[in-house]
Amino acid sequence: MTNFADAVIARTKELGCPVAAGLDPRPGLLSDALQSEAGTTRGLAKAYEAFADGVLTGLADLVPVVKIQVAFYEALGLPGMKAYAYSVRRAKELGLLVIGDIKRGDIGTTAEAYAAGHVGSPDGFDLGLGAESDPPDLPLHVDCVTLSPYLGRDSMAPFLDVAREQGKGAFALVRTSNPSAREIQDLVVDGRPVFSWVADLVSSWGKDLIGSSGYSSLGAVVGATYPEELAAIRKDHPELLLLIPGYGAQGGGPADVISALDADGAGALIASSRGILRGFRDAAQKGLDPEQGIREEAIAMRDALRAAHKAVVRP
Amino acid sequence: MTNFADAVIARTKELGCPVAAGLDPRPGLLSDALQSEAGTTRGLAKAYEAFADGVLTGLADLVPVVKIQVAFYEALGLPGMKAYAYSVRRAKELGLLVIGDIKRGDIGTTAEAYAAGHVGSPDGFDLGLGAESDPPDLPLHVDCVTLSPYLGRDSMAPFLDVAREQGKGAFALVRTSNPSAREIQDLVVDGRPVFSWVADLVSSWGKDLIGSSGYSSLGAVVGATYPEELAAIRKDHPELLLLIPGYGAQGGGPADVISALDADGAGALIASSRGILRGFRDAAQKGLDPEQGIREEAIAMRDALRAAHKAVVRP
Repeated sequence: MTNFADAVIARTKELGCPVAAGLDPRPGLLSDALQSEAGTTRGLAKAYEAFADGVLTGLADLVPVVKIQVAFYEALGLPGMKAYAYSVRRAKELGLLVIGDIKRGDIGTTAEAYAAGHVGSPDGFDLGLGAESDPPDLPLHVDCVTLSPYLGRDSMAPFLDVAREQGKGAFALVRTSNPSAREIQDLVVDGRPVFSWVADLVSSWGKDLIGSSGYSSLGAVVGATYPEELAAIRKDHPELLLLIPGYGAQGGGPADVISALDADGAGALIASSRGILRGFRDAAQKGLDPEQGIREEAIAMRDALRAAHKAVVRP
Repeated sequence: MTNFADAVIARTKELGCPVAAGLDPRPGLLSDALQSEAGTTRGLAKAYEAFADGVLTGLADLVPVVKIQVAFYEALGLPGMKAYAYSVRRAKELGLLVIGDIKRGDIGTTAEAYAAGHVGSPDGFDLGLGAESDPPDLPLHVDCVTLSPYLGRDSMAPFLDVAREQGKGAFALVRTSNPSAREIQDLVVDGRPVFSWVADLVSSWGKDLIGSSGYSSLGAVVGATYPEELAAIRKDHPELLLLIPGYGAQGGGPADVISALDADGAGALIASSRGILRGFRDAAQKGLDPEQGIREEAIAMRDALRAAHKAVVRP
């Protein structure tokens, strides 16, 4: 069984691309043709499926990971959740590693239930299902999820169990990319901000999930919008696989994130959603192939990161 | 339009019962008859719907609020989410106020998407739907949700907007009921634990949601398993409506929570899931009506809280 972090590192190196493309569907990102199919929640959810088809097909041989934001599907209720399941399945069929950006965090059996829904049933969580009717991959199952750390290790434990037993992964929020991240995360405890203590905890929780790559399958979310904090966390915790949102539309650029990559250009996944997804509509509006528009944005991001990496890594 | 906190306070007083009954379906809580219908995710989800029917009908004229834990539905994937939507609708039809225990927390447009999915679309979040196909209450829409505070005010803002504009509510996690709650929540900042700072923030975010009852529609989750912290938070923030998990199965009793109630026996919702839900199977196994079993557990809890409240409030 593959360790999740090892799988990410191997695929990142193979493609020379540390990008986690964000699939965050919004009506404004669709082509006119797809927008015209919307108008009801069911119609919009169907349009999101077609959008995912184009985006994922365009990205499959370029990026190692797609990060699917469940909130945009939950916004549409049940038809939206069906489109989420569809998108997860399509991404897997295309060979992409899939992060479900779900930011869940709850305790005890509730955390076990979330794990059962999104990555797999931890031992001891009884779904009450016969073996033949409990397929190893239910429709919502992804390779990895994002988790909120406020409740402590309890809320991670079932996900860590599934990571150990089934090769799945998780990223815990440490330093988020938003302006009000500072309100709680920067409170100072013994001279260090809360997020730095959280990074220590996350590191300790994932110690037994370190694979042959040297990275742990419990990683940390750290925003590109706080480059100094990002560099400090990378320095303190070289074994943490990092998931870095805030690139592109939120303001982070190659120079802000390059400190997070190792000499091989791996060890962190730079997430971009709107920056890549805009290629779909832009191409469609010009009468071009939306898939090609997505490819071009992903290639541009990959090449910008490669150039920045080359500039800092001396042979 | 009713303020959510005012609606809770009014109904709590009307029923003389500050209980939020937790609907946390698990296979082991079902009767043998319902268990025999499970065996597939679809079958189990159907059994959860029948379970919800019995539980909610039993509770409807006894408790003001039902708290539905979405994780146990997400555990079953799409059929589970359908059962969640069913349970939400049934609870509303029966006149219960519904808290969706979702503990979401994300930023910017993602937070707006969660709000659109679970309480209603905040202004400016474009679902791309025609007016006639955008009913005010989508199937997942509840009256109130639980939210995780780690990302700061950004992650609350769309929910606060909907609370203001559509009379919905939210509870932010302040002090959770689980053992590892201490890991982050008890880090000490300027002589006070993190959760105490979070309580201050939550209080400030909800100031303009205080209704005629004196309580705010942005409340706080504080576990019954930490009675001293609970009493301190109540004292510091008399306007915070409190949602108090950890009663019953997790170890909290009437004496632990009574400090959170005001002279009218309102101002806090004491949540119990397993303690009430066990009445369903217990009754069924004895050949009795499961609804009646649920009623008896809810009445026992209500009466224990009434007795404890009477003992501390002097006329």
